[in-house]
Amino acid sequence: MRLRNKPRAKEELSQNPDIIIQDPKQCKGKWNEIFGNDNPIYVEVGTGKGQFLMGMSMLHPDVNFIGIEKYESVLITAMNRAKESSQTNVKFLNEDVANILEFFALGEIHRFFINFTDPWPKNRHEKRRLTYKGFLTLYEQLLIKGGEIHLKTDNQGLFEYSLESFSGYGMSLQNVSLDLHSSNMEGNVMTEYEQKFSRKGMRIYRCEARFKS
Amino acid sequence: MRLRNKPRAKEELSQNPDIIIQDPKQCKGKWNEIFGNDNPIYVEVGTGKGQFLMGMSMLHPDVNFIGIEKYESVLITAMNRAKESSQTNVKFLNEDVANILEFFALGEIHRFFINFTDPWPKNRHEKRRLTYKGFLTLYEQLLIKGGEIHLKTDNQGLFEYSLESFSGYGMSLQNVSLDLHSSNMEGNVMTEYEQKFSRKGMRIYRCEARFKS
Repeated sequence: MRLRNKPRAKEELSQNPDIIIQDPKQCKGKWNEIFGNDNPIYVEVGTGKGQFLMGMSMLHPDVNFIGIEKYESVLITAMNRAKESSQTNVKFLNEDVANILEFFALGEIHRFFINFTDPWPKNRHEKRRLTYKGFLTLYEQLLIKGGEIHLKTDNQGLFEYSLESFSGYGMSLQNVSLDLHSSNMEGNVMTEYEQKFSRKGMRIYRCEARFKS
Repeated sequence: MRLRNKPRAKEELSQNPDIIIQDPKQCKGKWNEIFGNDNPIYVEVGTGKGQFLMGMSMLHPDVNFIGIEKYESVLITAMNRAKESSQTNVKFLNEDVANILEFFALGEIHRFFINFTDPWPKNRHEKRRLTYKGFLTLYEQLLIKGGEIHLKTDNQGLFEYSLESFSGYGMSLQNVSLDLHSSNMEGNVMTEYEQKFSRKGMRIYRCEARFKS
């Protein structure tokens, strides 16, 4: 993704602390207090401009959604979307997923979403892929027992890799789709990338991977 | 597959007992004696006209290959191919895979191949799919520890199902390819169906699934 230079982005993000959580380490283990309810918490890692998470938060008012995104310049768009909506069940963190253990307690998350993540195609960059086993160990610790990761991507190589990584970790796969927009999946919320790629006729790949319970 | 009526097929098959094993129950636990060596045994379930197995047997002279096919009319072609070749490392069984425990001892097989198997797309026919968990339990008993199944198909639905079935059984996936003929896999031997479908521009899906060791 090409990121435009937005020097004042960090400052803008800090002006909406109800949407962009400023000190997420303080929230560890207290997310249900922050949302003011006991609804399950779904986290999107690499949330980008937030289209998916805003759409999901409207479709599922009984779920709390948290998006993690390290790039300020795209998160500004997510913040503005959240401001314009009346949704109270969505928050964002301007953080690196690699530090996620600092922001959540063990078992505090009910589901992870990974959408159109950077495929890092070179072998020497394998550890940067968000479906690398190193990240799976982080997700597993933070998820409830038998928790799931829902993955979507247009990148064939990343999808092949992720199927191997998930199953190699002992996870079971459900609802695998090798051409999502030709399937009969209901309730799919499209990301910005998904709209763009599927308009070009590219296949979208999707699966759900469940940790052992 | 449309099967032509070949009434004399069974009789023809019986005339080449060195290629078409006539009483495979007698061979259980003795396949290495029959081949006259200690080479590993690879089995293709649903071997059809035998093009894949004949090609593999030529590429891998240090492996013994056994093809199982219940339809006589297609197995005739496999038999004739084996007669015309000088390969001694390939045999066929005119049997139903469902009875496979009768023909092999536990741990006697080193690898299974499943190529372009009938997808049985209706939910009520799930148990007939050769990657259904009921078949996986048969393969697992007959394979060495950590043995593998190598699957190829043009059928998207069967491939999606098989990824779920393999991982749900606790198997790990390797070398997943969602477009085999655009990948850089070496040593791929094409089946009749594979040639036909890939000429039409259809994707071929492939994966290797390993049982827990």
